[in-house]
Amino acid sequence: MLLDLSTDAVSLTRALVDIESVSRDEQAIADACEEALRALPHLDVVRRGHSLVAHTNLGRGERVVIAGHLDTVPLNANLPSRLDEETGLLHGLGTCDMKGGDAVILRLAATVPEPVRDVTYVLYEAEEIEEAANGLRMLAEVDPGLLEADFAVLMEPSNGGVEAGCQGTLRVEVRTTGTRAHSARSWKGVNAVHAAAEVLNRLAAYEPRRPEIDGLTYHEGLNAVAIRGGVAGNVVPDECVVEVNHRFAPDRSAAEAEAWVREFFTGFDVTLTDLAPGALPGLDRPAAREFVEAVGGHVAPKFGWTDVARFSALGVPAVNYGPGDPLLAHTQGEHVPVAQITACEDRLREWLTGGTASTGSTASTDGRDVS
Amino acid sequence: MLLDLSTDAVSLTRALVDIESVSRDEQAIADACEEALRALPHLDVVRRGHSLVAHTNLGRGERVVIAGHLDTVPLNANLPSRLDEETGLLHGLGTCDMKGGDAVILRLAATVPEPVRDVTYVLYEAEEIEEAANGLRMLAEVDPGLLEADFAVLMEPSNGGVEAGCQGTLRVEVRTTGTRAHSARSWKGVNAVHAAAEVLNRLAAYEPRRPEIDGLTYHEGLNAVAIRGGVAGNVVPDECVVEVNHRFAPDRSAAEAEAWVREFFTGFDVTLTDLAPGALPGLDRPAAREFVEAVGGHVAPKFGWTDVARFSALGVPAVNYGPGDPLLAHTQGEHVPVAQITACEDRLREWLTGGTASTGSTASTDGRDVS
Repeated sequence: MLLDLSTDAVSLTRALVDIESVSRDEQAIADACEEALRALPHLDVVRRGHSLVAHTNLGRGERVVIAGHLDTVPLNANLPSRLDEETGLLHGLGTCDMKGGDAVILRLAATVPEPVRDVTYVLYEAEEIEEAANGLRMLAEVDPGLLEADFAVLMEPSNGGVEAGCQGTLRVEVRTTGTRAHSARSWKGVNAVHAAAEVLNRLAAYEPRRPEIDGLTYHEGLNAVAIRGGVAGNVVPDECVVEVNHRFAPDRSAAEAEAWVREFFTGFDVTLTDLAPGALPGLDRPAAREFVEAVGGHVAPKFGWTDVARFSALGVPAVNYGPGDPLLAHTQGEHVPVAQITACEDRLREWLTGGTASTGSTASTDGRDVS
Repeated sequence: MLLDLSTDAVSLTRALVDIESVSRDEQAIADACEEALRALPHLDVVRRGHSLVAHTNLGRGERVVIAGHLDTVPLNANLPSRLDEETGLLHGLGTCDMKGGDAVILRLAATVPEPVRDVTYVLYEAEEIEEAANGLRMLAEVDPGLLEADFAVLMEPSNGGVEAGCQGTLRVEVRTTGTRAHSARSWKGVNAVHAAAEVLNRLAAYEPRRPEIDGLTYHEGLNAVAIRGGVAGNVVPDECVVEVNHRFAPDRSAAEAEAWVREFFTGFDVTLTDLAPGALPGLDRPAAREFVEAVGGHVAPKFGWTDVARFSALGVPAVNYGPGDPLLAHTQGEHVPVAQITACEDRLREWLTGGTASTGSTASTDGRDVS
């Protein structure tokens, strides 16, 4: 299938949505995007697996990344796309998460041949599945030079607002132990579930830290996400496990957050099971400041963990900015207001051109018909 | 297979052990016992399923039940029986739980044709499996007249001591609820696991009642036997369930115990899932007093729930009294000291004969060879 990058971003979003691309099935959409990008002479295109990286090489003093993933969660009777002209909503799998953002990326790649800052466009595979398969992770580990930049924009849905940085996340198992006994003679045993009372007391009394970073107020969290214990209906349990998820603001490193949790649960057996660092918003960087000015509006802290943290780990500050309501992601009824797609495209173009470019759709096609 | 009731109780125990009788496979052992009992002219024998009831009908002023179950837990490479002459221990599945007791029952049935109190011997099926299959329960519900008596002895292993009555048992689910939220924005939700802290605090602070009944000190218990909660590693849980087992002394009815538990967990959602009343020791009854005098030794309260409660529910006070260590029941290495089998037989015979009988092994065989 050929993609027409000269069409408007909404039509391009529909074209992308109608190429089914559930995780692990990204070949067709990656092929289509690769062909369209390779037709643009101002870009150097590299493909790794089903992930694409396209650079401008204009020798600008600054380089920015604009990135999006190509995959979706599984089908749920929500394809093909359906545009409701009356409400201005485009419905269908991937409309919100995140082919609207991908369409904007392709449109910018095609229509801004001479940006005022060099740009690296990234379209990657396997964001919706396990960490090990993630295309951005693979690029960052195998070929980090491809992602070198001063600032990155990840076009995850953010309702067209800027969500800066992201909080880190870690999980621990807090374990209490006891001694089994028949429950008819329970005084012969030690009940590990009763011993977990103090773990839950500490969690219930927890007061979240709300640090301000670059003018943004983050909001930490510490929650039991699961609890389990029990041997049989007539046995005093000898083990109880509380799974705890800590979300920590990006002013703390992963190691600091782990140490804090271990201190919080002093006296208990604590096992780390998952750890992902946060990402500082980096709004003090010039590219970031100009980005925020260009896209205008409110900047909010990002509470959830996203792939922006991968950029942060490479020393690249990053924000989430894209069309669509993040609360609709992964729902059967996901949709996107088409006006948000257009607005994102216009504002990013303004940022990339320093406010000088028109929204002309054929400026970069080098006279060839790329459709 | 024919059973020789003229042999000693230890040999008879071995013969019973070597008839495999895992629950639901009691036909062979019930057939053998039925044939042996029907050969005794002083007994009226009734069979229901694979359970047997044999009455003397001498018009005595008092009737007692002596009962045991015929089934065992599953095989665990522990058959056939093996007698260690040096230690005096008989090894094998069912030696302890409870074919030593069954052998004593058959020996008494055969050798005490004219007891001073009328006797109802009961050998029943399916004690080791679910409640609904229990042979004693079936008899009590379908034909309770067969079990009418002034006192009952259940020959469950009690190390040859008397364990009187039994405690009741009930289970409840104590449920807390909350509101799901993504754990990155946990303040939008309400954590049901954290809300369970107070449930565990009350359990941890619980002080058991230890009431004295008929000179015996019971010991209650209240334990979380399981806890569960959790939706996913990134979701604030909206439900937590604590399964609680309460063991209550027999001075409280089942209804009183349930009301007490509901009061204990005031403010929480409490669902009753299991309820079995206890059994009063009834040591004030003449038959019970004489029994205790005859078997001598220490009388202890029974903490665990046993089938004695079924007699209690029929208005028949009951005790546990039998050879074998109850802690060995259901273990691969179960065994019984043969001296305990012999001692139980001798003491019960003394009780049934008023101390006048010899231990002659052929008194009741009516001249026929029953082997």
